[in-house]
Amino acid sequence: MQALWLENGRLSIRDDLPAPVPTAGEALVRLRLAGICGTDLELVRGYYPYTGIPGHEFVGEIVESSDGTPPGCRVVGEINVSCGECETCRRNLPTHCERRSVLGIRDRHGAFAGYLSLPLRNLHRVPDTVPDEAAVFTEPLAAALQIQRQITITGEHRVLLIGAGRLGQLIAQTLALTGCDLHVSARYPRQKALLLNRGIRVIAENEAPARRYDIVIEATGSPSGFELARRAVRPRGTLVLKSTYRDSANVNLSSLVVDEISLIGSRCGPFEAALNLLEQRTVDPVALIDAEFPLARSVEAFDSAAKSGVIKVLIRP
Amino acid sequence: MQALWLENGRLSIRDDLPAPVPTAGEALVRLRLAGICGTDLELVRGYYPYTGIPGHEFVGEIVESSDGTPPGCRVVGEINVSCGECETCRRNLPTHCERRSVLGIRDRHGAFAGYLSLPLRNLHRVPDTVPDEAAVFTEPLAAALQIQRQITITGEHRVLLIGAGRLGQLIAQTLALTGCDLHVSARYPRQKALLLNRGIRVIAENEAPARRYDIVIEATGSPSGFELARRAVRPRGTLVLKSTYRDSANVNLSSLVVDEISLIGSRCGPFEAALNLLEQRTVDPVALIDAEFPLARSVEAFDSAAKSGVIKVLIRP
Repeated sequence: MQALWLENGRLSIRDDLPAPVPTAGEALVRLRLAGICGTDLELVRGYYPYTGIPGHEFVGEIVESSDGTPPGCRVVGEINVSCGECETCRRNLPTHCERRSVLGIRDRHGAFAGYLSLPLRNLHRVPDTVPDEAAVFTEPLAAALQIQRQITITGEHRVLLIGAGRLGQLIAQTLALTGCDLHVSARYPRQKALLLNRGIRVIAENEAPARRYDIVIEATGSPSGFELARRAVRPRGTLVLKSTYRDSANVNLSSLVVDEISLIGSRCGPFEAALNLLEQRTVDPVALIDAEFPLARSVEAFDSAAKSGVIKVLIRP
Repeated sequence: MQALWLENGRLSIRDDLPAPVPTAGEALVRLRLAGICGTDLELVRGYYPYTGIPGHEFVGEIVESSDGTPPGCRVVGEINVSCGECETCRRNLPTHCERRSVLGIRDRHGAFAGYLSLPLRNLHRVPDTVPDEAAVFTEPLAAALQIQRQITITGEHRVLLIGAGRLGQLIAQTLALTGCDLHVSARYPRQKALLLNRGIRVIAENEAPARRYDIVIEATGSPSGFELARRAVRPRGTLVLKSTYRDSANVNLSSLVVDEISLIGSRCGPFEAALNLLEQRTVDPVALIDAEFPLARSVEAFDSAAKSGVIKVLIRP
């Protein structure tokens, strides 16, 4: 099959790869559409030493499955494949399994390919009314919703979101559903326009008042974003880290103690909730799509996705 | 009056200082006993630029008060003096008031003196059955209890406490009351003996299993303590910072995100709860006292308190 291949930070198109052979409990999935995420760009930059087929945001259709799911059924998939046996799994934290493989990120070929395989328990059926162009956002939308599984956000909270890119736009849309008093710090005109179109308030970085927000969500993964977040959160407030950082950061731990800040790391989230919101059309990810490339041109797709201000680039196998 | 004076990192005894004159709403308190805390030692080392009388752990007696509290009544006092008017105060976070003075730490003379003044609202009456030698621990005991105001700890939690010094011993005693599965990493023989005497399990630093504890409390304020804490906490676990750090730390923020760790800074706590535990004798701080010095020898008391493995040194005016 054809696939995008990452090795030593270099991307190439290969046509010589065998389709994956599902093991017991897995399904073979034909890819319909896949999305490029910030993590994919970081993998290319060497953030994590991965060799293989990247890609973890996808919608596909079942080719064969051992549980009788009919071929052609559209699915999306959770990306962490857990062992089910280690202590972390037994404590019901499968996304943190220490022996996990992660689709297109660690020890498991990903979605920029003709086919992939995943355990059946990782797959979720896509409602018929949700088009592929929306379903492909299920994984990042679930990640956005994870914030609300970790902390309660209500209409009484003043919330600042820093970053309005790929993940930031989805976070903004889900935060807005809580009725909280939301400000979003966005950098690029298209990011701002997308938010303003949905009635979400946009502020410039230097407009964020210091020590005023109950909750600050940092979604840029940049040192300057973290600094702004630290400055903007009020004493005894919560700072959610919703992006990975290339390097270690110099953090003033004493000031976290003196101000009694809660710093919360947040990663993968609930797929069913994400699919429900897509089915209800309560969130609209389709407006975030900048471009779509065929798989054969996916190296070019990565170049496009890496440009400043670009939000979502899709790859169609 | 006589007092200990800190200026440019140097301690001296002065006899030429006027007793404080209480302003409206304040009481004049004659000191009975005061304790040296890690923060006092850090102030001398230049952690924070303070000039004046240090000391913030005390028990004293009312000399005069505008609310009719009888002279001689024993009191302990909360150390943050808030303005009551700023936004932080109006949001019911008086300990975080941006204009606050802090007894013996910021803009307010402290407890290593014959007298101090504090607002009446900061003072708590000491039950008659609680001796001075226990009451003087009210402030750090309240700080220990603050952890349980911020997170829920029950018998189902595996908890690691790192550090068994001044504050660590009190934290260990209060954690033990929750029935949690508690391990304490202690360095010095006397620290270990005090814990073992109360049936609290002690482990060596290198015995703490990696990624196993639901909750880790870091009470050493050292980079190595923070590293151990980070290593010991399980994915989606909670790391409480219960000490201040002299320097900024290099923190791998990405790993906090990937493991979905909650990092929580914790400072001052509830005095009434602390006094209740002292009245019930549920905790026993008196065993932590290493030495007592008269105020005139308080420079020597600081030298004694700074020695490795020493827990609590008291100063009696």
